[in-house]
Amino acid sequence: MFKGFKLDIKNALSFVEEGEYTEYLKKAEEARTALVRGEGPGRELTGWVDLPHITDREQLDRIMSLADKVRKDSEVLIVIGIGGSSLGSRAAISFLSGTADDGHRTKGGGPRILFAGNDLSGTSAKAIAESIGDADFSLAVISKSGTTLEPALSFRVFKKLLEDRYGKDDAAKRIYCITEDNDKALHRKALKEGYHLLYVPKEIGGRYSVLSPAGLFPVAVAGGDIEELIKGAEEERINCLDLDPDKDPALMYAALRQLLYHKGRKLEMFSSFEPCIMCLGEWWKQLYGESEGKGGKGIFPVTAMLSRDLHSIGQYIQDGERILFETILGVENTASDMVIPETEDDFDGNEYLAGKLYSDINRTARQATIAAHVKGDVPCMEIILEDQTEHTLGRLIYFYEFACGISGYIQGINPFDQPGVDEYKKNIYERLRDI
Amino acid sequence: MFKGFKLDIKNALSFVEEGEYTEYLKKAEEARTALVRGEGPGRELTGWVDLPHITDREQLDRIMSLADKVRKDSEVLIVIGIGGSSLGSRAAISFLSGTADDGHRTKGGGPRILFAGNDLSGTSAKAIAESIGDADFSLAVISKSGTTLEPALSFRVFKKLLEDRYGKDDAAKRIYCITEDNDKALHRKALKEGYHLLYVPKEIGGRYSVLSPAGLFPVAVAGGDIEELIKGAEEERINCLDLDPDKDPALMYAALRQLLYHKGRKLEMFSSFEPCIMCLGEWWKQLYGESEGKGGKGIFPVTAMLSRDLHSIGQYIQDGERILFETILGVENTASDMVIPETEDDFDGNEYLAGKLYSDINRTARQATIAAHVKGDVPCMEIILEDQTEHTLGRLIYFYEFACGISGYIQGINPFDQPGVDEYKKNIYERLRDI
Repeated sequence: MFKGFKLDIKNALSFVEEGEYTEYLKKAEEARTALVRGEGPGRELTGWVDLPHITDREQLDRIMSLADKVRKDSEVLIVIGIGGSSLGSRAAISFLSGTADDGHRTKGGGPRILFAGNDLSGTSAKAIAESIGDADFSLAVISKSGTTLEPALSFRVFKKLLEDRYGKDDAAKRIYCITEDNDKALHRKALKEGYHLLYVPKEIGGRYSVLSPAGLFPVAVAGGDIEELIKGAEEERINCLDLDPDKDPALMYAALRQLLYHKGRKLEMFSSFEPCIMCLGEWWKQLYGESEGKGGKGIFPVTAMLSRDLHSIGQYIQDGERILFETILGVENTASDMVIPETEDDFDGNEYLAGKLYSDINRTARQATIAAHVKGDVPCMEIILEDQTEHTLGRLIYFYEFACGISGYIQGINPFDQPGVDEYKKNIYERLRDI
Repeated sequence: MFKGFKLDIKNALSFVEEGEYTEYLKKAEEARTALVRGEGPGRELTGWVDLPHITDREQLDRIMSLADKVRKDSEVLIVIGIGGSSLGSRAAISFLSGTADDGHRTKGGGPRILFAGNDLSGTSAKAIAESIGDADFSLAVISKSGTTLEPALSFRVFKKLLEDRYGKDDAAKRIYCITEDNDKALHRKALKEGYHLLYVPKEIGGRYSVLSPAGLFPVAVAGGDIEELIKGAEEERINCLDLDPDKDPALMYAALRQLLYHKGRKLEMFSSFEPCIMCLGEWWKQLYGESEGKGGKGIFPVTAMLSRDLHSIGQYIQDGERILFETILGVENTASDMVIPETEDDFDGNEYLAGKLYSDINRTARQATIAAHVKGDVPCMEIILEDQTEHTLGRLIYFYEFACGISGYIQGINPFDQPGVDEYKKNIYERLRDI
């Protein structure tokens, strides 16, 4: 039996030549050296590499003590942030609670976590405000600057709601700012008003920040064990730094996806038969899409929630253009399980499954789907998680982050900047001056 | 001012030659003739073309009267169905209620609608069961056969829950089967047990069934005005059948997307700055992906929730491979709106937006994003909805269905079958015999 997770690449290896794969593994090893020694492009934003190693007891205690306060005095936590400031914690909360519905249900019945500031919709802001109802609530504002349009406007809306409810002074005690120790708007405001403060190191970009307070604080409020999360990440960090390339899942995954891309596979599909893993897919989409979609190149990241999407893009996967490869995630020991009930009359012809566990059927479906997709000429990697604990999640998160750095370096780009995102921002700000 | 919706293609037309577009419009017109006359491939499954026309008062009354019963005796409706048996109603409910969270909040405070049978996860089934809690509930089971694995197992689970709660006889009065008038499992079981029955015509496939009872019943339970939905669809049907090709949005959209595909644009991205439109994107993904991903060809359908995904795949859109085109949806008169609050100190530098409406900022952001994407070499169509009423939604749904039929015929395939989906099903059933 394996610990944490295992990566099975046999159904992707069969689509490439051995020599090619060896060549790409060599590139991955060189990329690892550059990443770890801080010799690659974007080196000033690789603070996440050692983050789990340097996160100490004292830091975790501070996050947990603030989270405890929220758990005591609030039924709802509004998390305001966009991109890396919400996708990571949302993914973790959904994964750990075993639900697909975005923090409405949390582990052990803690406060509901509602995510805001991800859009520019009054309809959406109003729906979130109404969803709070009369419940006691607090705000977490996650931004390095405090000026990014979507979370900034959202902060205005929910700060007002909070101050109208509790008065300015008591509201201030319910605001948690997670930002950088800098001279920018959010930090200055937090100091001026006495909001609670947690810092994200400046060497860590948004999409690599889930293991910093940006991710840890909401996860802790939702009842997640952040100490175990960091322990898992640290364990994987040691693997990533030490293992032989052909035993290190991060290097194998990075090498193989870049090789498949080189051979014309332009899309990677992240899929799972567990709905609660799909928020992690959204986090992965940002991590890889924003890191690699550059210079007219890059693998386009898409997600598929199975079985649902087998009745949707499933037809394309099986029989459309051959430009896809797939990474499918499964869980060996699921968060919970259920037995298929018997019927008196076997009206649906499924009585042979009565008494069986959903998890066994799920595993069989995953294997059958892989077989069907491989037969349909789609290379398919498989990631099997030992369980749905914080420890396993920490390992998986670090694996994906490390592999992303490696993969970007193989591709020959800086995986830590996002020049293209600034283009739309510039356009918006210019036009907003005229409305 | 326009009525219903308008399609603006100027930012896509600029990527093609006039002669090419005229040629594809001509193909679209030929496709329309074949579709309407029932002379194209898959003609036996084009019952949806005239559906809004033949749906009468009596049928709507029957659906509404059953829906009223659920609204009176239930706080939760579990909708069991996969693919076309859930994506359409889920899209409509989310759109009409103005929320992104899948039926947890419905229009006018009707029963919560929870969707089940979309996966093979015990974790997921348990989460849904727990989410019902002590609330009174009913079941809608939507399937032509009743034997498809995912909904069939889900029906076993929730039928047992219902029977344990209410006893077998009273439970039967809370089960609504939406199926075909055939000799298959679900229909036979419903007749035997006296479950409520609604029929989907056999000339309509799953992904084209949202305007049949498969979609109408859950929407009616959620408080949607299904009569207006059908009226809007019928209005659009008349447009689709009568207008000149260069004035008919469905023909223009179908022609342009096939032409862009012909010119190397392999992905279409459905995007919106309104989160409550994104469930419609999932419905669209099935409609187009399952209709067109065939014979080694087809446009791969993806969705992007903006602004969130501008901080995710936004970088790729702006600067990755040039294989994308985009269709962005906006709403002119949104379901609700909000004014940006003032601050005392303009700490975020956004005070110039205080007092403005979210909807105005949203519109500006959409236009700025289109400009940025076009500048980044991404063709971009724009669909602007007049409002978020049932009437407008009915028009939009019919537009997308009709355009899909046309588009598939231009591509030269049968847009009404799904041979590839059967491949994974076959694989699963074979392997399940051994577990």
